[in-house]
Amino acid sequence: MVKMEGFRKLTPVGEALEIIYGSGLPEVGSEAVPTRGVLGRVLAGDVIAAADMPPFDRTAVDGFAIRSKESFSASMNNPAVFRVKGRIEAGETPREGGWSIGRGEAYEVFTGASMPRGADAVVMAEDTARNGDDVEVYRSVSRLSNVSPRGEDIKAGETLLAGGTVIKPWHIGALASVGVREVCVRKRVRVGVFSTGSELVDLEGGPMAPNGIVDSTRPLVAAALEALGCRVLDGGIAMDSVQSISKRIEGLLGEADALISIGGTSVGRKDLVPDAIEESSGRILFHGLAVKPGKPAGYALVGGKPLFMLPGYPVSALVGFEAVVEPSLCRMMGRGAPRRLTARARISRRVPTAPGVRHYLRVVLKTTRLGLVAEPIAITGSGLLSSVTKADGMVVIREDLEGLEKGDEVEVELLGGDIIG
Amino acid sequence: MVKMEGFRKLTPVGEALEIIYGSGLPEVGSEAVPTRGVLGRVLAGDVIAAADMPPFDRTAVDGFAIRSKESFSASMNNPAVFRVKGRIEAGETPREGGWSIGRGEAYEVFTGASMPRGADAVVMAEDTARNGDDVEVYRSVSRLSNVSPRGEDIKAGETLLAGGTVIKPWHIGALASVGVREVCVRKRVRVGVFSTGSELVDLEGGPMAPNGIVDSTRPLVAAALEALGCRVLDGGIAMDSVQSISKRIEGLLGEADALISIGGTSVGRKDLVPDAIEESSGRILFHGLAVKPGKPAGYALVGGKPLFMLPGYPVSALVGFEAVVEPSLCRMMGRGAPRRLTARARISRRVPTAPGVRHYLRVVLKTTRLGLVAEPIAITGSGLLSSVTKADGMVVIREDLEGLEKGDEVEVELLGGDIIG
Repeated sequence: MVKMEGFRKLTPVGEALEIIYGSGLPEVGSEAVPTRGVLGRVLAGDVIAAADMPPFDRTAVDGFAIRSKESFSASMNNPAVFRVKGRIEAGETPREGGWSIGRGEAYEVFTGASMPRGADAVVMAEDTARNGDDVEVYRSVSRLSNVSPRGEDIKAGETLLAGGTVIKPWHIGALASVGVREVCVRKRVRVGVFSTGSELVDLEGGPMAPNGIVDSTRPLVAAALEALGCRVLDGGIAMDSVQSISKRIEGLLGEADALISIGGTSVGRKDLVPDAIEESSGRILFHGLAVKPGKPAGYALVGGKPLFMLPGYPVSALVGFEAVVEPSLCRMMGRGAPRRLTARARISRRVPTAPGVRHYLRVVLKTTRLGLVAEPIAITGSGLLSSVTKADGMVVIREDLEGLEKGDEVEVELLGGDIIG
Repeated sequence: MVKMEGFRKLTPVGEALEIIYGSGLPEVGSEAVPTRGVLGRVLAGDVIAAADMPPFDRTAVDGFAIRSKESFSASMNNPAVFRVKGRIEAGETPREGGWSIGRGEAYEVFTGASMPRGADAVVMAEDTARNGDDVEVYRSVSRLSNVSPRGEDIKAGETLLAGGTVIKPWHIGALASVGVREVCVRKRVRVGVFSTGSELVDLEGGPMAPNGIVDSTRPLVAAALEALGCRVLDGGIAMDSVQSISKRIEGLLGEADALISIGGTSVGRKDLVPDAIEESSGRILFHGLAVKPGKPAGYALVGGKPLFMLPGYPVSALVGFEAVVEPSLCRMMGRGAPRRLTARARISRRVPTAPGVRHYLRVVLKTTRLGLVAEPIAITGSGLLSSVTKADGMVVIREDLEGLEKGDEVEVELLGGDIIG
């Protein structure tokens, strides 16, 4: 009899991540990048404000800067009258002596302008009327009305943005507002990716053989890496031999921070990747992940660099990527794992699953009288990408469950939604 | 008395979008892009499958292809025995005559291989034992067990992906799997952006004046456009004069599909953008949006191209962008508006708002015994980006409400989450 072709042990996802994190996963270094170009990048360290923001007491509206207590009891019928000493525009720099007001005096000020000394509030223009050198004020204002005091937004020495922040547009705005022209961000993780399989043809290669199989998983994984902000080093397709795969690994190892192999990892006649890893003096830390689909995933260290083994089937590869590769790469970048858009729904039918294995179920969402319902998509193989492109989302069934009962409430990861924040 | 410095009419967001959509918003054209490079792009039209996928009956496992009915009653103690005619590897092309089996015959097959004629099921290798030229089968299989029939994934003529799809990694995988090397996607929308304000200094410009104000809103808006997949044409900073602004508009008009002006739009002494639009023979369709912050937003057509006026303050600009610019640009790209990650929470205190105006409230989220609580951030001005960088999310208070009562359930748009799908 031949040996049973299963994995001796399937490693649960949580344990797999502990093994990976404990294996001395290298963190990538940092580089200075102009603030305008850091969208989606990861802050390498805290950004501390070098100065107060605003840098001076600043008016928040167009109007008249006065001493607030002098507007007490002002009304439409009983205006308070001030002498206008001048005007201050936004961005104007005070000349020697600067601007200041005394009793009964005002400055006309425009949004963003510096407050004159002595003034502690601004009356909005629409609550006033100009009368020659005077202004009539029809409304009382309290101290600091319509004023953004110096340092209100950010105080010097305060943390403006914390290390590990994934930069959004408003972070760029905040950095620009305090004059930060360059930011220290994590370098992009360079990930070498190659497929194995003599039967595969490259999408952009020559003409297709009638029974040829296009390598679709490599472009999928490359795009998932791109969405995470990684730099992809394309290692192409390795033939089905230990030497060919080993050569591919060693060729990518110099440039890459991490490697991903696709295919050739199931425990069968053609399990060449594990052999090639050993050929390249690598060490396999686990092989066989307790997920379905995606079981043939694994992890090794080669030359001190992480190598993730992903199955060749696209849906299996996607699951393995989401379960272990993505959180690991995020850790290498010094950031938290991304969140995904989810929706709550009830499952339309019973779904039995094997306990101890995390199941990834593709579902279609339907709005019914009873709310959102998730219908599992029937499929025969994880080679079927239509189960993902036709699906609205993915339901993760935890390994401590034996499946779902009809009507169970589930959290659906929406596939329209990409990796975020 | 001076005129009251308010807007004559504030246009509600819904009405504003109707005006914009009804104004003949141009849609951008399309271009062919290699499949590997289309992540995040928008499909210009439906992609129809040119062939069945799989293109032949395909085995989903490693094992033996047989006639299923001949395995009937096979068990560990009573194996069914088949003569092995040969083996078929994945990607192998049949020679003349092809592969076929008759009664009592089997082919050894490997995952992804074509099924031999006559066979209708595959027994997994672990349920068999090889014995010379024979194979013993220890388990019965039913018709199509472990087989992906031709066209199961996608049938020729079926829509693989619908026009308007924003391409995710698995869409790239699906396109690659059917051999699509190039996809027709929408061109990127080219958006010309400029700021107005003589007091502003460019982030990357020379040394800062002591009371100088860095133009932080333009980098913010540029990054928001970049996140949406637009191409930004940077128009810099225009001085506070109708001529300077008009020149800026006309300079960008040739290259751009749409324009965004920042600042200079409040109804005050310096409302120069509306005047400049008229100077450039443009037509203002609305000016004054019923949102807070963000009121001074507006919309015009200049030379048949849309021009969005955004306020100069960063938070106001962000609100105006999200309320009207983003949905309009999505429409120009032939895609739906993006969704954002949200969380449900209860508001920690009463928030009165003016009815008829949509309010955007920045909040901090706290987990309490009673669940998630949203605490509004106290601020004096919409110039304060810290209210966004310190916030966990934004609560939109609809214009038909007069505010929120303490404990009201609200939907919080999470600011950690970016624009998606």
